[in-house]
Amino acid sequence: MSDQHIFWFSRRSLHAAIAVPAVMAFTVLLSQAQENPLPSWNDTATKNAIVEFVADTTKEGSATFVPPAERIATFDQDGTLWVEHPMYSQVIYCLDRVPSLVAEKPELKDVEPFKTVLTGDRAAIAKLPMEELEKLLAATLSGMTVEQFQAEVQKWIASSKDPRWKRPYTDLTYKPMNELLGYLRDNGFKTYIVTGGGQDFVRVYSETAYGIPPEQVVGTAGGTNYTYGKDGKPILTKEPKLLLNDNNAGKPEGIHLMIGRRPIIAVGNSTGDRQMLEYTEAGDGPRLAMLVLHDDSEREYAYGPAQGLPDTRVGAFTQELYDEAMKDGWVVISMKKDWGKIFAIGQ
Amino acid sequence: MSDQHIFWFSRRSLHAAIAVPAVMAFTVLLSQAQENPLPSWNDTATKNAIVEFVADTTKEGSATFVPPAERIATFDQDGTLWVEHPMYSQVIYCLDRVPSLVAEKPELKDVEPFKTVLTGDRAAIAKLPMEELEKLLAATLSGMTVEQFQAEVQKWIASSKDPRWKRPYTDLTYKPMNELLGYLRDNGFKTYIVTGGGQDFVRVYSETAYGIPPEQVVGTAGGTNYTYGKDGKPILTKEPKLLLNDNNAGKPEGIHLMIGRRPIIAVGNSTGDRQMLEYTEAGDGPRLAMLVLHDDSEREYAYGPAQGLPDTRVGAFTQELYDEAMKDGWVVISMKKDWGKIFAIGQ
Repeated sequence: MSDQHIFWFSRRSLHAAIAVPAVMAFTVLLSQAQENPLPSWNDTATKNAIVEFVADTTKEGSATFVPPAERIATFDQDGTLWVEHPMYSQVIYCLDRVPSLVAEKPELKDVEPFKTVLTGDRAAIAKLPMEELEKLLAATLSGMTVEQFQAEVQKWIASSKDPRWKRPYTDLTYKPMNELLGYLRDNGFKTYIVTGGGQDFVRVYSETAYGIPPEQVVGTAGGTNYTYGKDGKPILTKEPKLLLNDNNAGKPEGIHLMIGRRPIIAVGNSTGDRQMLEYTEAGDGPRLAMLVLHDDSEREYAYGPAQGLPDTRVGAFTQELYDEAMKDGWVVISMKKDWGKIFAIGQ
Repeated sequence: MSDQHIFWFSRRSLHAAIAVPAVMAFTVLLSQAQENPLPSWNDTATKNAIVEFVADTTKEGSATFVPPAERIATFDQDGTLWVEHPMYSQVIYCLDRVPSLVAEKPELKDVEPFKTVLTGDRAAIAKLPMEELEKLLAATLSGMTVEQFQAEVQKWIASSKDPRWKRPYTDLTYKPMNELLGYLRDNGFKTYIVTGGGQDFVRVYSETAYGIPPEQVVGTAGGTNYTYGKDGKPILTKEPKLLLNDNNAGKPEGIHLMIGRRPIIAVGNSTGDRQMLEYTEAGDGPRLAMLVLHDDSEREYAYGPAQGLPDTRVGAFTQELYDEAMKDGWVVISMKKDWGKIFAIGQ
């Protein structure tokens, strides 16, 4: 046996010992992923509708083929990609910021709404009039540089916990939705968040929580102001000036402003998403509009008021919206029936 | 000789006749492209600065490596990516739209600024006061659906011609800049246009002219209004309401709004780009800021007023900006010295 043969043989042994099983395992994983790209979704009509839509729009030569550049999918966040009950996470962030805000500016201690927020009395806070809440948002979401704000949100995301699950809020993203986002991206879709929440807020964690980069987050946005610091360096400061209220009609308006293309898939969960879904559906060619119905009080929450579910202050899914969905062929996702798992964390 | 040998032999003949030369030709082309990714750039310090910056930021393990997600490059359009003299193309579009606008609304015929525009007297048009010009912009850039506007611009782009070169405006993109855009994308950069021009206007042709999709165009933007047509279908109408004036300080503000990340490369050609370049440079890590100096009256135009070049109304590159560039180590691109070719069309 020549040296060359020994070398060849030892290479082959290596293959047999490591490479071949590794390739086999990879092939098995790959075929599993292809066979079942949405493992947390139950095998219902909803899942079929999604898989069929993706197949129809990505098969070259088919009448319903959509070029990759036009495969835009927009997702609401609160109640669609993660838990929004009993209070939007961003509102909790604003409330949590008040103690350090008052420590910096003690004169706010006896001024509303800060005085009430400091008591920690959630019932009293919930009764604060809208103009007081706006003062709270302005004080906690503007007046600092964009980098200071990003650092504050990052710190809060890393340290705060949902009181029911006692986990970071980013652990409460819906596993089926993260699978859907990944499945769409694997099929050439560009996935966007289109949220009523603050654009700068969501951008801080969108990449780690959803694999969506900051430039693909459209949200309620305020202006910034470009000035120079004492060292002469440029500063962008967040201003209490509303540029885009990304709710209701503001969603299609925001999509036009920030993306400039009409989505072919839109997913929401409340009346605030209605216009985004209508706008998506009104385009030519294949379209998929979906709404998440929170009908699972055991594993998450149950609220509507559609279909006799409780009426709450957050994320209203009205019967009128439900009827529009049925009439226009939108897909209503039942958390209870369509989702095998809700979160990536154990339940 | 077995059948197998014949087969093998014939395959080898095929290789010899076709495949090998094809592979060789491909390899030569590939190595040329790698050796000279910017063929329309002369071998000057400017080109070296670009190539070195790209090498430094894309070499894994190097201290100056920038992860692909953060490789954001922003380019001004008018005067940076295509000709802006003697008048911005979008202004010509607005003037060109006036006759059909007056045909639709004959009552405008005797009203300023339409009356003066209809005379075709460029000197008189140039003297129109700003508030009259704003009326012109409002009338030609808003009041229609976004799809109607896109169709109008598309038609104009396909049919109108620059009077000097007698070519469509999209033929007057700078070849070196299109090479640079492609070179950056090949190296994992995401290329954006950040223009003082209308966002909706530039988005119509950005993909075909520069390979930049609409969602990567940031520009001066007006609001839209979501309503329903007579058939009940949703409509987005362009409103004469300014959301973002994407000039000067508006450029970094627009970048934050639309992208949410600080660029690591920014390229402009006038004082309107100053803040974008300052903002880009002020970030940590490697940064490249560049300005195009129009110093080539023969092949294009010569204007400053920096460096004793003529002072014109369009795209001012002041001496103050030039001094700031020199002081801060920004790269000034001389069209005359750094560019071997200006346009893809013959010159």
